[in-house]
Amino acid sequence: MTMKRWVLASPIEGAPKTANFALMDELIRDPEPGEIGVRLAYHTVAPGIRAKLARETYAARVKPGETIPGMGVGVVATSNHTAFALGDLVSGELGWATDTVVCAEKVQRLDWRHYETTPIHSALGVLGPAGLTAYFGLRRVARIEAGETVLISSAAGAVGAAAGQMARILGSRVVGLAGSNDKCRELVDTFRFDAALNYRDESDLDAAIQRACPDGVNVYFDNVGGAVTDAAIRCMAINGRVVVCGQTSEYSTAEPRGWRETTTIITKRLKIEGFILFDFAAEFAEAAEQISQWLAIGQILDRPTIVDGVENAVDAFISIFGDRPPGRLLVRTDPTAC
Amino acid sequence: MTMKRWVLASPIEGAPKTANFALMDELIRDPEPGEIGVRLAYHTVAPGIRAKLARETYAARVKPGETIPGMGVGVVATSNHTAFALGDLVSGELGWATDTVVCAEKVQRLDWRHYETTPIHSALGVLGPAGLTAYFGLRRVARIEAGETVLISSAAGAVGAAAGQMARILGSRVVGLAGSNDKCRELVDTFRFDAALNYRDESDLDAAIQRACPDGVNVYFDNVGGAVTDAAIRCMAINGRVVVCGQTSEYSTAEPRGWRETTTIITKRLKIEGFILFDFAAEFAEAAEQISQWLAIGQILDRPTIVDGVENAVDAFISIFGDRPPGRLLVRTDPTAC
Repeated sequence: MTMKRWVLASPIEGAPKTANFALMDELIRDPEPGEIGVRLAYHTVAPGIRAKLARETYAARVKPGETIPGMGVGVVATSNHTAFALGDLVSGELGWATDTVVCAEKVQRLDWRHYETTPIHSALGVLGPAGLTAYFGLRRVARIEAGETVLISSAAGAVGAAAGQMARILGSRVVGLAGSNDKCRELVDTFRFDAALNYRDESDLDAAIQRACPDGVNVYFDNVGGAVTDAAIRCMAINGRVVVCGQTSEYSTAEPRGWRETTTIITKRLKIEGFILFDFAAEFAEAAEQISQWLAIGQILDRPTIVDGVENAVDAFISIFGDRPPGRLLVRTDPTAC
Repeated sequence: MTMKRWVLASPIEGAPKTANFALMDELIRDPEPGEIGVRLAYHTVAPGIRAKLARETYAARVKPGETIPGMGVGVVATSNHTAFALGDLVSGELGWATDTVVCAEKVQRLDWRHYETTPIHSALGVLGPAGLTAYFGLRRVARIEAGETVLISSAAGAVGAAAGQMARILGSRVVGLAGSNDKCRELVDTFRFDAALNYRDESDLDAAIQRACPDGVNVYFDNVGGAVTDAAIRCMAINGRVVVCGQTSEYSTAEPRGWRETTTIITKRLKIEGFILFDFAAEFAEAAEQISQWLAIGQILDRPTIVDGVENAVDAFISIFGDRPPGRLLVRTDPTAC
């Protein structure tokens, strides 16, 4: 049996290019003791991965020849670990590949019952890292309270759309920032945001945010950084909190623009906090239980854009950094997956 | 009786200039009911004032014709308020002036006993706003703990030198950043910092900070912003805290440089918090009591540079923003003050 996987050909400088990646065709190896083989159904293609592929990144860097990282969901196909049986549904850091053999400790077994009415790709969406990131960012980092105004950048992305829906469930007024009118319509019509602003179209983004958030922004959930974050900071309420979840505007550039409204951090007494999802691993099960309840009763929707075929993963990744990013992307590596 | 006071002639754009200010010669008016007249001894000349004089500032702006703000200490010379007697020692927002008449609620009465062995200008230093800012920034914002490494920018300034000394008393390893070798020597020799770095001289500031802080920076007390803060952020330990107290590198420019290490806020899970001293007003008395004890037993030193004569206040202010800022400045408006 053969498999395909994407490896790093050369570290990324600036925007990612096709030449930074190579698609390998290999035999699937047998699992060593403690390992399992997974046949992937879907894997993510997320902007945050770029930081791990960049020449300038010094921590947790992917080296040339190594598999491009990405969360995946799939089914156990071979097992050399007593706790995993063929047919088990698992997710974890599986990489951009059709198949992989990993240490069983690296994956999480999922509960098939959560996927009776929900496609399994939700394990990579609101029931997976994106949904958990939104959940912990709002509840454990921002500690949002009912009645607050929450502003979300990159709101049509996986984390942003989940965060907006959860913030609304938790009693907040929710305003999203996105890069196209189509996305803004989707945020309001499908994901029930209170308002959405196309930051590319607004001639005065500050004024637009202020109109949408008349009492100021209590919590800014930042996925993007740069000038958009400066506008958000200017519109914060006193004692507002900024959750720093992603800085996608900065990942593709050797000279990040950064934030320039740093004096306003003082005058508005802002609290700004970065976080990493896996610091909350001990609480994943509890959070997933809550999210799956919201999903089951239709309070949260999960609507990724699905790209078919692992061979299209790199083009999909590059498109995220283009002028018209396509929204949240998943690659379906198994054409039979639902 | 006449008095002198500095007023804003025109809002500042870019660096402050002499022409932005005008020195008025006026009769001292009698206090209305509820007011007191104060004969100033000293007033501060601090970089943070610039933000209130700038054209682009929208909040709490000083208008042309109004007195330049500054904290002052002096003696009650006339009183139309039953709680204040002639000879009382007071401090507060008195402005750049030799004399002023203010609403008594605007000043704080000081305890002459604290100044038996300490010059009264300490009411504007470690026993005043600078010392209180250092105290609350460390204890209430950063919540420093013994054994942590604290890095302080603009460490030779009023707040910085106080913060370094207090952090050391509280059991931290203290490293200061300053702009000249003389200041660095003063930080180590006089103020007993564990190390001090001249950020203008270091060809690789990151490496210098890492050598001085081998376990990473747990708390960065930021008075300056800009590129220095980026270096500090790169040297933070995981879960480090940044206290945003001042951003002096940004006050004189219409195009602030800002922070560009925003992605590192995520990877290091940093907590960044801005604060304003007066939010802690209810705790001032308790803090002053603690600081005066440290001062009495010689654990904290207060060494401002004193400029004689209110007519020199503007030149002193402008010098702060020059290539070789002179350190912490006070203007002695009363030549007989000690």
